[in-house]
Amino acid sequence: MSIVVQKFGGSSVADPDKIRKVAQNIARGYDKGNQVVVVISAMGDTTDDLINLAHKITDQPESREMDVLLSTGEIVSSALLTMALHKLGYKAISLSGRQAGILTDSSFSKAKILKVESDRIVKELNDGKIVIVAGFQGITHDSDMTTLGRGGSDTTAVALAISLKARVCEKLTDVDGIYTADPRICPDARKLKEIGYDEMLELTSSGNKVLHIRAVELAGAYGMPILVASSFNDSPGTLIHGGDLMEISNKVRGIAHDLDVAKVTLTGIPNQPGIAAAIFEPLAKAGISVDTIVQNAFMENVTDLTFTVSRGDLKKANDVINAIARDIKAAEVVTDAKLGKVSIVGTGMQNSPGYASKMFTALSKAGINILLITTSEIRITCIIEEAKVKEAILALHRAFELEKV
Amino acid sequence: MSIVVQKFGGSSVADPDKIRKVAQNIARGYDKGNQVVVVISAMGDTTDDLINLAHKITDQPESREMDVLLSTGEIVSSALLTMALHKLGYKAISLSGRQAGILTDSSFSKAKILKVESDRIVKELNDGKIVIVAGFQGITHDSDMTTLGRGGSDTTAVALAISLKARVCEKLTDVDGIYTADPRICPDARKLKEIGYDEMLELTSSGNKVLHIRAVELAGAYGMPILVASSFNDSPGTLIHGGDLMEISNKVRGIAHDLDVAKVTLTGIPNQPGIAAAIFEPLAKAGISVDTIVQNAFMENVTDLTFTVSRGDLKKANDVINAIARDIKAAEVVTDAKLGKVSIVGTGMQNSPGYASKMFTALSKAGINILLITTSEIRITCIIEEAKVKEAILALHRAFELEKV
Repeated sequence: MSIVVQKFGGSSVADPDKIRKVAQNIARGYDKGNQVVVVISAMGDTTDDLINLAHKITDQPESREMDVLLSTGEIVSSALLTMALHKLGYKAISLSGRQAGILTDSSFSKAKILKVESDRIVKELNDGKIVIVAGFQGITHDSDMTTLGRGGSDTTAVALAISLKARVCEKLTDVDGIYTADPRICPDARKLKEIGYDEMLELTSSGNKVLHIRAVELAGAYGMPILVASSFNDSPGTLIHGGDLMEISNKVRGIAHDLDVAKVTLTGIPNQPGIAAAIFEPLAKAGISVDTIVQNAFMENVTDLTFTVSRGDLKKANDVINAIARDIKAAEVVTDAKLGKVSIVGTGMQNSPGYASKMFTALSKAGINILLITTSEIRITCIIEEAKVKEAILALHRAFELEKV
Repeated sequence: MSIVVQKFGGSSVADPDKIRKVAQNIARGYDKGNQVVVVISAMGDTTDDLINLAHKITDQPESREMDVLLSTGEIVSSALLTMALHKLGYKAISLSGRQAGILTDSSFSKAKILKVESDRIVKELNDGKIVIVAGFQGITHDSDMTTLGRGGSDTTAVALAISLKARVCEKLTDVDGIYTADPRICPDARKLKEIGYDEMLELTSSGNKVLHIRAVELAGAYGMPILVASSFNDSPGTLIHGGDLMEISNKVRGIAHDLDVAKVTLTGIPNQPGIAAAIFEPLAKAGISVDTIVQNAFMENVTDLTFTVSRGDLKKANDVINAIARDIKAAEVVTDAKLGKVSIVGTGMQNSPGYASKMFTALSKAGINILLITTSEIRITCIIEEAKVKEAILALHRAFELEKV
């Protein structure tokens, strides 16, 4: 018998009816002769509701207590899903992150998994039980509850799959695979049968939200295949794996976009060693995650520097940067909150300079102004006005003929 | 420094505003120089909400999973209360039942505490922290979550107080002490300064809901004093203790009542050995808790038997008893759901026959018909119609002059 780890997201278990449907789905997989471990998120908006509750008590909840609070959401859904499987006549048991042996460091609210001690899971599987694990959580060596940060349930699922030597880690969600572009925006978007880890990483870091980036990284490092498929129907999904990819005719694999982009520009900075550190260290200390950084030296002694952050961090970033600007005698701080980014991703791009110019031409023809450009070996990203993102996706999908296999 | 264990109920932490007030209350106790351990219940109706959620999934949730589900309620409130203390500038930490070292047997949903390993609590107290413990929960030796049953948080508090050799266990709630009768019903009811464990046990088992009976038993067994006081104001409460009681002039200590009484009568039972077992074993197996039992043998070979159960159990009890009645060829099963009971309690009653007749006379004068009578050494209970309970309390409070010290 082979082990399958299945991950269901919060929208799949948002209410009792959906929990019952997920239980039926799990039961079908078990009836096929698999040993099934399920990793579950909190129901619907539970995590956000708990965060709001904490913020009614204090504007700066301590992260250890926040983790105690938030970890209850997944425990509730794991117990309810287990009850639904019992109701269907299946043997099942819920395990918390602790009971599932998810050992983490002590970075509360963004803990990293150090080790999985899966003895208890193995024992329950050998008893013929379906094992339902509360995702997103673990335990420190001091026995304190931790959470893995947003999207951490994906990481739990991949870590368990690796530890249990599962055949596959299935991510079952309300989208039924990875598309060449967001199908809600681009009607021609095509579902991919398969995609490599590198490409999936780039799509994920560029705004595709189907999987958490840490989960993709971890799966890639251990070669654990992830199947992304629907939690509600049996249509074939997308397999993320590290083997040879069959579907190579199209060198751009997909388009990712992100609407949560804000920009801070600092002008007239004295161009001297240590300036970048003086700017980015305080941002890191303030817990602000900086995405793209672009620096242009127009004149010999003065430079301009632009970086992007998520919109929620813009106010804090602006405060930090204004203080720094005074210290380093920069000329001006300018911010823009209404930006988006659009990226093309594909391993075929490597060493092929034609892709960049084709992308810029397509955007230019659509009348879209490019504000910032960044690239990796297999990705080109343009930061543009938020209002133009949809048009940009459609133009790029057409230009690279992604509707064709 | 002496340790004080404080228990706050669910109504004291029903919303963020109340949680903040409780935090201020705790901070005042800490500022007086105490080491403070707080045991907390789930917020308001959380436990009932979780039970309803489970019943939307299945009508018979497995008790292990039910405990996983329900134990989250206290964890949420413990984290929120800890955050509120941080906000006030106090060092505090939340601990789950597991982290607080509450080890129980494996009787899910009604686990008994076997042992308290309080090392972690002691460590945190010695670090100068206020320790907030999630009540109502523990852990089996297999590391599974258990709950102690309704009212279990009181038991957690007393068990911790005993284990930590606390000076006192304070039960802080929305009533500010133990009264001679329910003050919402009887305007003359007087707050007691102190009461003995035995009397408190009888009041509790007769319907007084301020403390859970297991907590009173446990406190009595170890001589741990319990102070019942208000969670919202500083008015002096009632001390439950085992020492000499100062306030002995009034031999009836108080009146308890209970509106949740239903009665099952089985008539025409062949009066032979083993009949009582044949009746009560199936009830116990069905999980029905039987309160009062009265048997009257009117004729030599035939007897009538009446017992009371809580109203929620009446339907199940009736089904069980009808099956038994056929087996043992009893004449008839009669039920009545609309009953109540009223009890007078006081150690002074011992060996003083006058109390019973005084009670019956007072009820008779008020035109109240007594359906069943049961007594203990320090208690007399009359089961009467539900509609007459209020009148009965007022009549008895006057007859025994409980308004006078």
